[in-house]
Amino acid sequence: MTTAENSSSYEITFLPSNRRVKVAAGVSLIKAAHLAGVHINASCGGSGVCGKCRVILEGGTVEGGRSEKLSSAEYAEGYRQACIAEVNGNATIRVTAESELAAGAVPTEVPIRHQARMHVFDIDTLKKEGVFLPPIEKRVLHLPEPTHEDNRADAGRIIRGLHKEHNERGLVTPLPVLKKMRRALRDKNFEVTVTLSRAVGEGSKTHIVNIQPGDVSHRNFGLAFDIGTTTVHGSLVDHQTGRLISRRSDYNAQISYGEDVISRIIQAEKPKGLQLMHELVVNTINGLITKLLLKTDIGRDELTSITLAGNTTMTHLLLGLEPHNIRRAPYVPVSTFFPPIRARDIDLELPLRAVALVYPSISSYVGGDIIAGVMGSGMYRTEPVTLFIDIGTNAEIVIGNRDWLVCAACSAGPAFEGGGITHGMRAAAGAIEDFSINPVTFEPMNITIGHKPPIGICGSGLLVIIATLFENGIIDRQGKFDRSLDTPRIREGRSGFEYVLTWKEEAGGNSDIVLNEVDIENFTRAKAAIYAGCKTLVEGVGLHITDLEQIILAGAFGSYIDLDSAMTVGLLPEVNPDKIIYVGNGSLLGSWMSEMSNHIRRDVVEVVNKMTSFELSEVKNFHDQYVASLFLPHTDLSLFPTTSKRLKKNGQTA
Amino acid sequence: MTTAENSSSYEITFLPSNRRVKVAAGVSLIKAAHLAGVHINASCGGSGVCGKCRVILEGGTVEGGRSEKLSSAEYAEGYRQACIAEVNGNATIRVTAESELAAGAVPTEVPIRHQARMHVFDIDTLKKEGVFLPPIEKRVLHLPEPTHEDNRADAGRIIRGLHKEHNERGLVTPLPVLKKMRRALRDKNFEVTVTLSRAVGEGSKTHIVNIQPGDVSHRNFGLAFDIGTTTVHGSLVDHQTGRLISRRSDYNAQISYGEDVISRIIQAEKPKGLQLMHELVVNTINGLITKLLLKTDIGRDELTSITLAGNTTMTHLLLGLEPHNIRRAPYVPVSTFFPPIRARDIDLELPLRAVALVYPSISSYVGGDIIAGVMGSGMYRTEPVTLFIDIGTNAEIVIGNRDWLVCAACSAGPAFEGGGITHGMRAAAGAIEDFSINPVTFEPMNITIGHKPPIGICGSGLLVIIATLFENGIIDRQGKFDRSLDTPRIREGRSGFEYVLTWKEEAGGNSDIVLNEVDIENFTRAKAAIYAGCKTLVEGVGLHITDLEQIILAGAFGSYIDLDSAMTVGLLPEVNPDKIIYVGNGSLLGSWMSEMSNHIRRDVVEVVNKMTSFELSEVKNFHDQYVASLFLPHTDLSLFPTTSKRLKKNGQTA
Repeated sequence: MTTAENSSSYEITFLPSNRRVKVAAGVSLIKAAHLAGVHINASCGGSGVCGKCRVILEGGTVEGGRSEKLSSAEYAEGYRQACIAEVNGNATIRVTAESELAAGAVPTEVPIRHQARMHVFDIDTLKKEGVFLPPIEKRVLHLPEPTHEDNRADAGRIIRGLHKEHNERGLVTPLPVLKKMRRALRDKNFEVTVTLSRAVGEGSKTHIVNIQPGDVSHRNFGLAFDIGTTTVHGSLVDHQTGRLISRRSDYNAQISYGEDVISRIIQAEKPKGLQLMHELVVNTINGLITKLLLKTDIGRDELTSITLAGNTTMTHLLLGLEPHNIRRAPYVPVSTFFPPIRARDIDLELPLRAVALVYPSISSYVGGDIIAGVMGSGMYRTEPVTLFIDIGTNAEIVIGNRDWLVCAACSAGPAFEGGGITHGMRAAAGAIEDFSINPVTFEPMNITIGHKPPIGICGSGLLVIIATLFENGIIDRQGKFDRSLDTPRIREGRSGFEYVLTWKEEAGGNSDIVLNEVDIENFTRAKAAIYAGCKTLVEGVGLHITDLEQIILAGAFGSYIDLDSAMTVGLLPEVNPDKIIYVGNGSLLGSWMSEMSNHIRRDVVEVVNKMTSFELSEVKNFHDQYVASLFLPHTDLSLFPTTSKRLKKNGQTA
Repeated sequence: MTTAENSSSYEITFLPSNRRVKVAAGVSLIKAAHLAGVHINASCGGSGVCGKCRVILEGGTVEGGRSEKLSSAEYAEGYRQACIAEVNGNATIRVTAESELAAGAVPTEVPIRHQARMHVFDIDTLKKEGVFLPPIEKRVLHLPEPTHEDNRADAGRIIRGLHKEHNERGLVTPLPVLKKMRRALRDKNFEVTVTLSRAVGEGSKTHIVNIQPGDVSHRNFGLAFDIGTTTVHGSLVDHQTGRLISRRSDYNAQISYGEDVISRIIQAEKPKGLQLMHELVVNTINGLITKLLLKTDIGRDELTSITLAGNTTMTHLLLGLEPHNIRRAPYVPVSTFFPPIRARDIDLELPLRAVALVYPSISSYVGGDIIAGVMGSGMYRTEPVTLFIDIGTNAEIVIGNRDWLVCAACSAGPAFEGGGITHGMRAAAGAIEDFSINPVTFEPMNITIGHKPPIGICGSGLLVIIATLFENGIIDRQGKFDRSLDTPRIREGRSGFEYVLTWKEEAGGNSDIVLNEVDIENFTRAKAAIYAGCKTLVEGVGLHITDLEQIILAGAFGSYIDLDSAMTVGLLPEVNPDKIIYVGNGSLLGSWMSEMSNHIRRDVVEVVNKMTSFELSEVKNFHDQYVASLFLPHTDLSLFPTTSKRLKKNGQTA
């Protein structure tokens, strides 16, 4: 993550505006300008093709910044192409006339974007708070050898040792451990390391899940997984220290049978389909386990636990439960709670002792991934009224605090994943992910993923583009273009008016890349569903949307979300951007937390039982809320006071 | 069982003594005479060969009783051979002069033998006492179908139904049940039968281990097993009613690798030996399960639980635990407690859900079979100070009541199983199992198993023979023959003096069957070890042997033990024979009880923790006690007051 706030090392000063930003080495100048709130024309997405982004290096150094678009003489004069120049020290950069409007004002200045504060997962704080209580712990025992006076059984000797040396009680010794006990004790002269699997519920027992000769207490590892419909993410965790050792992800191998959960369910309903879906996701997980262990000295047999979180359908397919009724009214899953499972019983290639913990769900469409996010974010144990939101094809919303929790799933449609948008695409190389506009010439600065020529628009780009067009008066509150504007970039296309982001010549494909009014309509419907969902939920518990004190964003989309844009268009309720926190992959975070803390495992049951699920389609005024949200940012501007003020200041008619 | 007290149907009157006995149809006259305390010469063991047992039928009827030894004329006169005549109605029988001493007295009268009262296992009493609480129960649910207002998960619906309809709480639903849930619910319109596996410990959960469509609550079955070193016994149990459906036994297939536990351990120490021993006993159990289900309409998949009890070595081999240190000082088993185990995990051919409960042991030589006997007999929850004793190669002794329990294993040697006795043998066809003697002529009445010509002496026969010889002054308190007696049956043989039980011509083998002084010495050492063990244990807790209020006998030997004989020789402490109860196979009984009652499962942990184990060889005065017991019945006759009185009355010099 590179933002103006963190990971900084070098200061870049942009002239003539004199705006400064601190960024890490390797960041492109165009990205640095964007972070500083400086606009540089860059139609080609930072691939160096259009050559419009030339700037002058007036002091310090940068790396690269020269393509065939610059002559040797120009290069010697200090000209650089901002999109292909990378920071490698402090520098002063002049944004040249070519790249801005010739006359007056300081049109290189555009609003600085706010990204959410990254939630920092801090083991030391957890330890201080007493929350660091790994479910798997190792204990070393130095036991006396048997004598005629003390010839208790090997198992009894170990249990007494655990009691006397470590104050452990209520222990159960499963058969596989009993089988290893005699040799383990006698191999290193009655010094052994036992692995304890902590009980969660009160009255439950601690299980002795392994015994090894000698002291190997420092080797104690587990796994945390997020089972996404598209992508599976895995982490390898050190139970002894709480540290993350490695992290890997891969496409869910089920993806070749359909992109969304409904198509996976249909597949599972076919003969042997459920087994197939189960095997595909398990193969993905097993493959990731192998990758997680690569370049470590950790063996597969040293892994004692795994926590997995996924949406309700993914969880069903992972466990081999029939998902049929998830897609049929009244949408009944087989189960929302799952007992601890022997990892081998769901075909995970882990030692026999390894236990798989699967996050519980709330309903067919509020799954374990959301619960994991709630647990990982800690919102369930703090005071502020918090909105937790994970935006994908379905946006899941949780609102509440330590006293109450409500949740709902909003059918947002696939706009945020690029679906239903003319040039929409997933967040992959060539996707426009960020954007600004010259407020006078309406020339764009496109920032693409991987500095490739633009081939489409991903979710975060879509949000920023629409917000920027709206802020600059190019589209109105209904998402319609101002047809009076004098620029070739705005024109009438097949689906109403459109804005040309990139001309064909500069694009990665063989057509202009545009955003049209139908795209904007689809986006607006999606954001309206989410906002209306939040408002309905909040009002359902007798509060107002303005009572929200904190917003927690989760999911891949949330990591790139521009907060000002999100409030400008009315996707997120308006709060001080400082109160918005991004937790990254909430599902993975929650899984990891469960590997770190038995308190989380205990609390999750309470959280699920406490959480009230709303079926939005069953709530009376949800549709009215939705219709009211189909404007930018909303029909009721009093819900967005700061945004309204900003829009007015910017000259928007709002 | 046929005794004078129960199963009676016909009255047989013996003349001239006028002694009467009630016996069932089919019992041989010789057996009836024996029960009535009437001696009939019968050297050939009831095979009809010697023809000495002729009696006269003076009234009523008998079946058979004629071989070539009787002429037609004799038969017409009423002569019958008692050993091959069977009761089929009331009858009056005169014991003829040929078969008794010609003159005076009533030498046909011999002491009536007392066998222990049979412990009757009464389900109805258990139910009244609230002890009938099967660990596996079935519950029928009639659930409402899901609606938009109530679209909880299938599992949640079932759990709520169990709570509302059956007041069940704290339920866990394992994965295999979740997998069947959706179809089971929808197959019979949301009527289902769930199988609950009850928790034992406090705070533990009840597991839902099966779900079936419709109402099948009446089909609920389990298994109880005794894993003996020689023989494996199994019972098929109806959990719904508590009834025993069938019972089978078979040799433990390990037997071809040695008769005793030590040889099995040695075998298990060889490469792959442990796996082999495990497989052999598991194959025996699996074979018995098949046999138990034969001629029933019960399928293997209807069996939900199995309880197994065996000695510590058998338990180790069953579970695949290394028994190596059981045979090496200081005799340390791997474990004495065993967690509930998935039956499949120890290769039992039972459904995946079936749980195996294995009885805990106390030490290397006081095993789960003994604990099962203690649990089955109920001695741990009653007031009287009780001696529980299971006699085999090793006799295990438990003494105590509901407040305290102590136990020990006595190395009795194999005399009671026929080992170390010149003509000793196991209790099989042709073994002399009962005996009386004509007090004047010293002619024997041998009763053999299966009415075959005698081929040897089994444990119960040995006890009765020695007691009878002692009562009649043929041997003295040191087990030496009175060499002055004038009978060809007492003679000097290779191993000192001996008594000829059967002449070669009447025997099943090709030699005389005898009992010699060395045999008597071996027997005396065995009984002394047991008695000394009891006395040492009792005195170890500050009581006297005379404080024993009840004796419970278990094991195959116990079923045939003649109580008077046992006290005459000083094997058992002297108590009123009414206070002696025989529980049969205590190990099997305890297993069955565990299948019937969760109270037993709960209590067993308490019993094991409460029980103090004595290592007799470590107790100071055990050896002195042993030496003092090497007399018949004991050096200290005050320990056997009634026996001493009887012996004096019989003219014994004791």
